[in-house]
Amino acid sequence: MGRTDVEVEDILEEMTLREKAAQLAGTYVGTMGETRTVEDATEMVREHGIGFVTPFGYGASPHRDSEEVIEIANELQRVAREETRLGIPILIPIDAIHGNAYVEETTVFPHNLGVAAARDRELVEQIGAVTAREVAATGSNLTYGPTCDVARDPRWGRTFETFGESPSLCGELASAKARGIHGAPVDVAAMAKHFPAYGEPERGEDASPVDKSLSSLYRDFLPPFEKVVAAGIEGIMPSYNSINGEPSHGSHYWLSEVLRDELGFDGYVASDWNGIDMLHQNHRVTQTRRESVFQSFTAGVDVHSLGGVDHVDHIASLVEEGEIDESAVDTAVRRVLDLKAAVGLFDDPFVDVETSVETLGSDSNRDVALDAARKSMTLLKNDADCLPFDPSLDDVLVTGPNADELTHQVGGWSLKERDELDGTTIREGIESLVSSEMAVTYERGSGIDDPDDIDAAVAAAEDADAAVVVLGENWYLHEFGPQDVTGPTDRFPNRAELALPDAQQELLEAVVETGTPTALVLVSGRPLAVSWAAENVDAILQAYYPGADGGVAVAETLFGEHNPSGKLPISVPRSEGHLPVRHNYLPHPYPIGADEHLPSYDPLFAFGHGLSYTTFEYRDLSVAEESVSVGESLTVSVTLENTGDRAGDEVVQLFGGRERASVVTPVEELLDFQRVSLAPGTDTTVEFDVPVETFDVVRPDGTRRFEPGPLSLRVESLDASIEAVES
Amino acid sequence: MGRTDVEVEDILEEMTLREKAAQLAGTYVGTMGETRTVEDATEMVREHGIGFVTPFGYGASPHRDSEEVIEIANELQRVAREETRLGIPILIPIDAIHGNAYVEETTVFPHNLGVAAARDRELVEQIGAVTAREVAATGSNLTYGPTCDVARDPRWGRTFETFGESPSLCGELASAKARGIHGAPVDVAAMAKHFPAYGEPERGEDASPVDKSLSSLYRDFLPPFEKVVAAGIEGIMPSYNSINGEPSHGSHYWLSEVLRDELGFDGYVASDWNGIDMLHQNHRVTQTRRESVFQSFTAGVDVHSLGGVDHVDHIASLVEEGEIDESAVDTAVRRVLDLKAAVGLFDDPFVDVETSVETLGSDSNRDVALDAARKSMTLLKNDADCLPFDPSLDDVLVTGPNADELTHQVGGWSLKERDELDGTTIREGIESLVSSEMAVTYERGSGIDDPDDIDAAVAAAEDADAAVVVLGENWYLHEFGPQDVTGPTDRFPNRAELALPDAQQELLEAVVETGTPTALVLVSGRPLAVSWAAENVDAILQAYYPGADGGVAVAETLFGEHNPSGKLPISVPRSEGHLPVRHNYLPHPYPIGADEHLPSYDPLFAFGHGLSYTTFEYRDLSVAEESVSVGESLTVSVTLENTGDRAGDEVVQLFGGRERASVVTPVEELLDFQRVSLAPGTDTTVEFDVPVETFDVVRPDGTRRFEPGPLSLRVESLDASIEAVES
Repeated sequence: MGRTDVEVEDILEEMTLREKAAQLAGTYVGTMGETRTVEDATEMVREHGIGFVTPFGYGASPHRDSEEVIEIANELQRVAREETRLGIPILIPIDAIHGNAYVEETTVFPHNLGVAAARDRELVEQIGAVTAREVAATGSNLTYGPTCDVARDPRWGRTFETFGESPSLCGELASAKARGIHGAPVDVAAMAKHFPAYGEPERGEDASPVDKSLSSLYRDFLPPFEKVVAAGIEGIMPSYNSINGEPSHGSHYWLSEVLRDELGFDGYVASDWNGIDMLHQNHRVTQTRRESVFQSFTAGVDVHSLGGVDHVDHIASLVEEGEIDESAVDTAVRRVLDLKAAVGLFDDPFVDVETSVETLGSDSNRDVALDAARKSMTLLKNDADCLPFDPSLDDVLVTGPNADELTHQVGGWSLKERDELDGTTIREGIESLVSSEMAVTYERGSGIDDPDDIDAAVAAAEDADAAVVVLGENWYLHEFGPQDVTGPTDRFPNRAELALPDAQQELLEAVVETGTPTALVLVSGRPLAVSWAAENVDAILQAYYPGADGGVAVAETLFGEHNPSGKLPISVPRSEGHLPVRHNYLPHPYPIGADEHLPSYDPLFAFGHGLSYTTFEYRDLSVAEESVSVGESLTVSVTLENTGDRAGDEVVQLFGGRERASVVTPVEELLDFQRVSLAPGTDTTVEFDVPVETFDVVRPDGTRRFEPGPLSLRVESLDASIEAVES
Repeated sequence: MGRTDVEVEDILEEMTLREKAAQLAGTYVGTMGETRTVEDATEMVREHGIGFVTPFGYGASPHRDSEEVIEIANELQRVAREETRLGIPILIPIDAIHGNAYVEETTVFPHNLGVAAARDRELVEQIGAVTAREVAATGSNLTYGPTCDVARDPRWGRTFETFGESPSLCGELASAKARGIHGAPVDVAAMAKHFPAYGEPERGEDASPVDKSLSSLYRDFLPPFEKVVAAGIEGIMPSYNSINGEPSHGSHYWLSEVLRDELGFDGYVASDWNGIDMLHQNHRVTQTRRESVFQSFTAGVDVHSLGGVDHVDHIASLVEEGEIDESAVDTAVRRVLDLKAAVGLFDDPFVDVETSVETLGSDSNRDVALDAARKSMTLLKNDADCLPFDPSLDDVLVTGPNADELTHQVGGWSLKERDELDGTTIREGIESLVSSEMAVTYERGSGIDDPDDIDAAVAAAEDADAAVVVLGENWYLHEFGPQDVTGPTDRFPNRAELALPDAQQELLEAVVETGTPTALVLVSGRPLAVSWAAENVDAILQAYYPGADGGVAVAETLFGEHNPSGKLPISVPRSEGHLPVRHNYLPHPYPIGADEHLPSYDPLFAFGHGLSYTTFEYRDLSVAEESVSVGESLTVSVTLENTGDRAGDEVVQLFGGRERASVVTPVEELLDFQRVSLAPGTDTTVEFDVPVETFDVVRPDGTRRFEPGPLSLRVESLDASIEAVES
């Protein structure tokens, strides 16, 4: 696979300074900001030997047809190979956030937040592998992911892209995703993002500062990056925001001292789109683009993803004027060429159109997406066994803005035109699941933030035996744009509101008021503060953005074909005023008495919560060892029995914390998890091997250390403890 | 004044270890937690020589009658002087947060947040001086204050105790308060609190961690402490919470390295009540009280305010067992004895009952409180010149839960029984101000969070020519207790809600709906998210907790006897979901375009906002210098004209920031302010002398440094800039 290191050195030897600099610059095709065409990009490759082109995806590229996409990729590579002096192929990155979803006919998975509810490492590996295959099949060779961001403010518009609020869950699933990408029989590189901390922006505002202590940065944000770096990841993308006053894109501390020296990362660092220009444009830490290029390059950013020819000019001139050393440029270029070699581009950068198209959205790929959607379904409430609905009911109402809207169901980082998407809405899923004798009435009832014919929905609810109200959020990116899709910034969804907007709330209340048994399904990228529903609706199913096949999974769950097993990867707050609300909060004093305060952790639904149609009983939580010491592990076991009357999956979640440490540590954290399937009446014993370093204490300077003392463990309502001792 | 240093050394020489340890321990009288009587406290002084007694105030002391209080103080001192071996007098601290308000017949000032709206350093000095006189008059010799906390989350229940969100405003007024205390012709010590950072607790929860970057800690929280320490302050009280994992009460870094070594503080540090026990009870950083005593003492806490005899035992035993050095105890005791000497206790610790009682609440003292209340009045909105109301109206309705409730008007840290308070409610203020021909109808209309006879209020509003609706919050401490005063924790006021509760909102809407011209007066400790009112009510007057004489100030403002001039010391948010909302936010990128985001600073009413009944025009903002360099100052001037038809005060506010720095810096900050009075048609030129170090850049490690580059200045809508250059 690829040329050897020696051959990379040979190429490097031959390169002019400008040719080197060009390997550190990229361009895009699309209409975001300055419009650039395929011809523009081709020209940049041909004339300047630019190293990266992003012709599809986020940048509002007009190219979405799979065959067209492949042909463009091939032509770009042909020009690079045949019409440049050195014939260096290009890297073609793509934002394959939940499958290669910016290209038609691909497999569109649930978004990460839903995948995290499934708590299934193998599933995530499969998603990674399918994604890699479909990325490779369209001529791309680098996917922007896995996302290692920990979501610590659910107002943030990128919450759905994360694996939730637990550093260990995020780390486990991000590394599973990377394993899947790397394990696929194709050569696709992965890029972990957004280093080092992005998921707790001030006031939930995208790309606003993450202003946290070093303790929190090292304890709450870095672990997923440490895990993927240790497992081997090709690229790292810095975050747009500043940390402790330093923009990540210009921070030598984070990108060199921490990422390379402490974490031992040896891949390449590429800017997040125009993250370099933001140094002067927004962060105000430099004055000109040239200064930004200098600062980011010397901080540790190898590649300017959108820099184009201008970046080539700046790098070349900075070297020529002695401000940066050519050997540093060589190091960066070497990283890029090594990567190109590693993904086989020097051997064959071309894609066969016919065989490739067959890969996209194949049945077996779609099966993985459907499996993921099923496992992500999280039943938050089910009073009086409202669900599953009896499939032999006569008449069911399906209503709400997300009941029959495939675009909303796939969420952002996907094609957003209904006719470009291939999938099943919730309405369609129900219609095809139930017997032909059941009348399925559909009334939209409400838009996302604008009323629709609520009376028709109520009339239908009155006639129905059951009502499915599908509410939530629509397709959006970042915060919460673009407005031509989501409407004005002050309309829901926006960062200030986590409650359902009036139009949706009124529809829900009106349907519930009819007395017809009602299930609320939430299709949303964030946990919504549905306090009224939690009190007044019989059943609530959190569906996240379940992907193109999510309609099938929701329908199967509502009618009992599938037994839900998802567990919340993020706490659902009672209101925006309760934020932050996280399971791993820090303990603290109560000056006038603990019962004089609202609880520190008082979610509407807790992290880890999720019901099943069967019942599980836990018993015998125990730790095998008497005590543990540095370098050792705890062996924790617990027995689980399916005490209900149907088969079901259960995710066993092990929480733990320290009873005491030299500094304040979280009351508890999710430590580990295992998904098990149990037939009714059967039991099993689940064992966790927990390295004692899991309990290491993060000191104020960010360093970790073993400390003796009692360690607490919890599974459901069972507790255990063990003493950590000096060896 | 007091004994000389040499005499303190003589005493120290004579002391046994236990006698020394006893000087580092305090006790209280009251019913909070374990009930302790005056007899208990007296016994502790007599038998153990305990150094501090807090017999009145926050700890729910039953002793509130001024003569009784003085007698208790005298008796405690008598026992200390006459019945202990060494005759060392005691320190008697009191929580005189807004005057000596836990004792009857004293002067009860507006709370700090209101005082900050007045932007008047001289006024704050006067408040400090009156407070000191009234503290001294009741036998106390140490006041817990000034508050140096910067309020960065308005959900926090202690927001009203602060001078608001601006570090410079907090610092200026805290040091003015200290100057006032020290300048009074009595010997009262001051204790700045709560070091180093308390005002941005997670989720607004009192005493939860302040988890911020070092940049923010040094830039946003420390400046007020630096200012009071530089000006000379006797004591520092650590904050209850943890910072970056370290509880302040146990942090050697903050209490010794920063406070003593960097800031040069040479006074004494005393725990905030049981802040030491919280190390093991809540923060979990120690296991036993003994360990907590060890950790806090070695971190730098000299005195355990509530430690009692148990603390004496622990300190003595820690010395005896060699864990702490007796010389360290000597240092702490020396600080305590020096303070006792400095406030004259060795000369005469006694108070003359008769002359003292005359000092309390004297007319001249009350005049200062009324002046403060007047100047604090902040007119947020005044459409169509709704205010001032014509004093010759026939009929005015006064309604709302805070219209006639003196307890609510004084707020926490005050006596809370109506009959113990002497003052004027808003209803009473209006009744005594207007002519006897005006009918003033009062209907409560609503409680704080429970409905009252709203129909009666509406009927009266229909008949009235104008309506005054007085809403807001009641008396509370911390978060938001105790419940026997404020009701259950989930009821308003609580930290999750900043909007008016339903009962109050309904009253307001019903009154406004009558079409009668309506002014909303907010008596509240926090900025409330009154979005509906901002749209629909003609006039809104923020009254904060205006103190015992606040009813007069509100009435005078409503009817035009007083022309309001207060400026918001804190931003008023649109909703809880918009938090944090601060004028000094950090700039950052907008990944998909600035107009795709809700604004970063989008308050309902901005920091610094406040209307007048006259109009002011600003012109000619200019900087005298061409450029500035290290050690120099900028001379900024601006001309202000009263272009309206009545006299008025205006607070000229100078904002500034850096256009560029090595790290991200706030878009702007309040730099300085001056209050001026102008007759109609006159103008004046205001000059500010701004040290260039005001623009110093706080680096990620917390250090500050001069950096060259353009500096921006703003007064109202006028801008100017100047270049900082290397010297």
